[in-house]
Amino acid sequence: MEVIFAYINILGSFSLAVSGALTAIHKRFDVFGVFIVAFVTAIGGGTLRDMFLTEREVFWLHDTNPLYAIIAGTVLTIVFRSKIKHLYKPLLLFDAIGLGLFTITGVQIGIDQNLDLINCIILGTITGTFGGIIRDILVNEIPVIFRKEVYATISILGGLVYYLLFHTRIDSIWINLIPIVIIITLRLIVVYYKISLPSIYRNGKKSD
Amino acid sequence: MEVIFAYINILGSFSLAVSGALTAIHKRFDVFGVFIVAFVTAIGGGTLRDMFLTEREVFWLHDTNPLYAIIAGTVLTIVFRSKIKHLYKPLLLFDAIGLGLFTITGVQIGIDQNLDLINCIILGTITGTFGGIIRDILVNEIPVIFRKEVYATISILGGLVYYLLFHTRIDSIWINLIPIVIIITLRLIVVYYKISLPSIYRNGKKSD
Amino acid sequence: MEVIFAYINILGSFSLAVSGALTAIHKRFDVFGVFIVAFVTAIGGGTLRDMFLTEREVFWLHDTNPLYAIIAGTVLTIVFRSKIKHLYKPLLLFDAIGLGLFTITGVQIGIDQNLDLINCIILGTITGTFGGIIRDILVNEIPVIFRKEVYATISILGGLVYYLLFHTRIDSIWINLIPIVIIITLRLIVVYYKISLPSIYRNGKKSD
Repeated sequence: MEVIFAYINILGSFSLAVSGALTAIHKRFDVFGVFIVAFVTAIGGGTLRDMFLTEREVFWLHDTNPLYAIIAGTVLTIVFRSKIKHLYKPLLLFDAIGLGLFTITGVQIGIDQNLDLINCIILGTITGTFGGIIRDILVNEIPVIFRKEVYATISILGGLVYYLLFHTRIDSIWINLIPIVIIITLRLIVVYYKISLPSIYRNGKKSD
Repeated sequence: MEVIFAYINILGSFSLAVSGALTAIHKRFDVFGVFIVAFVTAIGGGTLRDMFLTEREVFWLHDTNPLYAIIAGTVLTIVFRSKIKHLYKPLLLFDAIGLGLFTITGVQIGIDQNLDLINCIILGTITGTFGGIIRDILVNEIPVIFRKEVYATISILGGLVYYLLFHTRIDSIWINLIPIVIIITLRLIVVYYKISLPSIYRNGKKSD
Repeated sequence: MEVIFAYINILGSFSLAVSGALTAIHKRFDVFGVFIVAFVTAIGGGTLRDMFLTEREVFWLHDTNPLYAIIAGTVLTIVFRSKIKHLYKPLLLFDAIGLGLFTITGVQIGIDQNLDLINCIILGTITGTFGGIIRDILVNEIPVIFRKEVYATISILGGLVYYLLFHTRIDSIWINLIPIVIIITLRLIVVYYKISLPSIYRNGKKSD
């Protein structure tokens, strides 16, 4: 289980670093700016989660592997930036993988600390989505997840599935695999079919 | 005292959740966006305060009541959104109540930790006002309290009154009640009469 | 060493408070807004660093001297605001001093906690630069360090020099002085000659 989460952290960090670096390149940040947005996108959610928990030190202080994964992802993105632009679909996949992997890490940490269901779900959602929220704040835009794409709702749902599975007696590989696959699949379906949450507004116009 | 603060947290969270949800609805966020802005507005200040203090775990991790109060407040706001728009005055009252309740909670926690006056006041002001600041950052606006309405100044003043009363020997019910009433009253007076802090600028024009 | 760092914290806080207050005045914030931007600019980086480390309480909770230095810097800036506007060069110097002083404080804390090189550098850079980043987010602008002026790169470089010197056997006064002087000198050179990081973009146009 420990080993699985170590790989998850590395793969998830790499994926989200690529996503963050591309956003920063799109905004024409300098090299340092690209690196910092990549870092924040990749570790922002997990860092915030760990800051909430008094017993946990921020995870990258004692496990530097995710940091090297982020540097690798950022360097590769900068080097291949002209090509990656055309790779919208693989990118989306990376982002969905990051969402799936990080959500269940957060829920698991909540379970480890004997927290209530609602808090486990909150920790999972924060771990999965807040890196992207902080990324959008840094580039001075309203976080994209607040307006479309059912992003966080999928994280909440996947976290709930993980929580329920964890309290069954099935094999731990399935406990991890099923919610990850659900999150990635739902996320890709939502983007592919451009699904939104049902609107609470009478018409589609954005006020102010 | 513990019981009083439990009720304060619930009532304050509900009030600020309504205020946050309305801001998000005004910006036409999707349902999830409305919920997250409501959560952040309601628990942002107290969460930041608890993250500063090594001995305190973030308060909603072990007391989930404020979380349910936020969900209730958000659901009610979404359901009655068309009517609440016309209820500007009650809303302002809710916001003022949240400011008053949360400010004294923060000061009290500072006193419990034997901190200096200046730090107690800072913790009170953060608890009372930072939820609103983070809300404004999330919706990509300059926090309203930086430019008008004497919001934080009242929080500082109320916190100071609480701190001084706490070190007298009067009954604890008055220690809580007097600064809360002062904060709410001052806040409503300021809004009603459109009072601002004395300007440090020669004329009223806003540069860039 | 303790005494040196106490002075560094006071001087650095004062310098960055002046820088933050000037930004807020430029945006025409009210008096409270000026104070809070000054506070955040001055203590934001060190506060974030301490929130990452479970063993450290946020530094200004038990050492209030930096807080009074910030209040002094802000009051002086407000009083002399019309004159300081013409003092662009001394200001830049203050900002560079803050960067140099705070960077090495962060690296030293990382070393004290037996962290890896990469984490020490990250803590140094966060301590030196995040106050300014949070300042820019609060005034609703894309943080200036993401686009120009080689700000953070110098912090990383200076932090690295400090880390290396610390593991030699030279006198502790030099361990502190050399990286501080390097950071301040490089920063002033960069601003004076308008040096940027090599661009990764084909032309200078900023997209969207």
